[in-house]
Amino acid sequence: MRRLYHLPFDALSRKVRILLAEKKLAFTCVHEPVWERRETFLALNPAGEVPVLVEPEGKPIWDDHAICEYLEEVYPEYNLLGTTPDQRAEVRRLVAWFDKKFAQEVTRNLVGEKITKRFIAGATPNSGAIRAGKQNVHYHLDYIGYLSDQRNWLAGENLSLADICAAAHISAVDYLGDIPWADHPGAQAWYARFKSRPSMRDILKDSVSGIPAARHYADLDF
Amino acid sequence: MRRLYHLPFDALSRKVRILLAEKKLAFTCVHEPVWERRETFLALNPAGEVPVLVEPEGKPIWDDHAICEYLEEVYPEYNLLGTTPDQRAEVRRLVAWFDKKFAQEVTRNLVGEKITKRFIAGATPNSGAIRAGKQNVHYHLDYIGYLSDQRNWLAGENLSLADICAAAHISAVDYLGDIPWADHPGAQAWYARFKSRPSMRDILKDSVSGIPAARHYADLDF
Repeated sequence: MRRLYHLPFDALSRKVRILLAEKKLAFTCVHEPVWERRETFLALNPAGEVPVLVEPEGKPIWDDHAICEYLEEVYPEYNLLGTTPDQRAEVRRLVAWFDKKFAQEVTRNLVGEKITKRFIAGATPNSGAIRAGKQNVHYHLDYIGYLSDQRNWLAGENLSLADICAAAHISAVDYLGDIPWADHPGAQAWYARFKSRPSMRDILKDSVSGIPAARHYADLDF
Repeated sequence: MRRLYHLPFDALSRKVRILLAEKKLAFTCVHEPVWERRETFLALNPAGEVPVLVEPEGKPIWDDHAICEYLEEVYPEYNLLGTTPDQRAEVRRLVAWFDKKFAQEVTRNLVGEKITKRFIAGATPNSGAIRAGKQNVHYHLDYIGYLSDQRNWLAGENLSLADICAAAHISAVDYLGDIPWADHPGAQAWYARFKSRPSMRDILKDSVSGIPAARHYADLDF
């Protein structure tokens, strides 16, 4: 069976989980506490980071980007990267937008401070970073609203890895109740459409001890 | 003419410059001081970051990863990503190794502190970060030595984007004289082979005012 070493609130892991589900590929999730630096895990990925995908009888694949490109190449049936080089460049541009900019300006400041730091001995959340994350998120939600106003999905006519990637980050932040949906109806309409997909079901069941999910987290009509 | 917006000591920009040269694609470089946030540049890439590739009559492409994948798709003649999904996964794994781990542990601590910070008003180099960078580089050079001992090039039999990416980071650090070659003959042998390629010629001419290049920087027999 295909295995994915992951952390439930790691956005890059979520991206791969949603992608696997969209491609209707069966897999089991292995929760990997990377901060323990387990030797058997380091043997799979010397970089010590998740996500790592292990195909049946296959070599471990890391990082998230290599996994997504691999899955697209080997299982092209449900295309999520686009059919022309220009389309794929646009999908990959938006993936970079969320995995780099959104990650740095929002996800790290909110999920990183409030959730990830719980697992690091002696670390305390930085309130300045949390404030910055809450400010920065508005601009990104505006951008999502703008894109989904111009296009059917974020990168064009069809659902793509760009939507998956955006939903991966946003769902992790939304667990904390830190997405100000009321101010961003365009982004909310896009996320409502995405959230109702079967590929999101497992994501919406995730929880972390000591931090209850925002009340609307798993609600499809939020 | 194809244009690349770049910064000379940005490793991700260097990666694209070397890739373009390996693919024998003509291009002009546009030096883009991203800290000035020029409006005409933000219109090309709202993320405000380099590298950005603009193909003749084409849309701007960002980020570095999207550019490399695009060039591989559109100009496949000189293949630098591998010919099977497994090979490409290995190339992309090593690209992630250098663009994530090496970048965070070495490039940012040395090039970021000593060069990039010169352009940010009021910023001063962090001596702790510089010390950490000088420590961390040993482990990465060992890894390069290990890989090139097992294989002809870093990712396998053929030269690939993994070598290009490693050379992009290492060349930027080497400008500062911060690669301890004497302790790492395996890595040195690999870099000596790569450095003599025509694709490195422009890289070895780069300079930054106020910081002279290490004496051996452009020397092919170092």
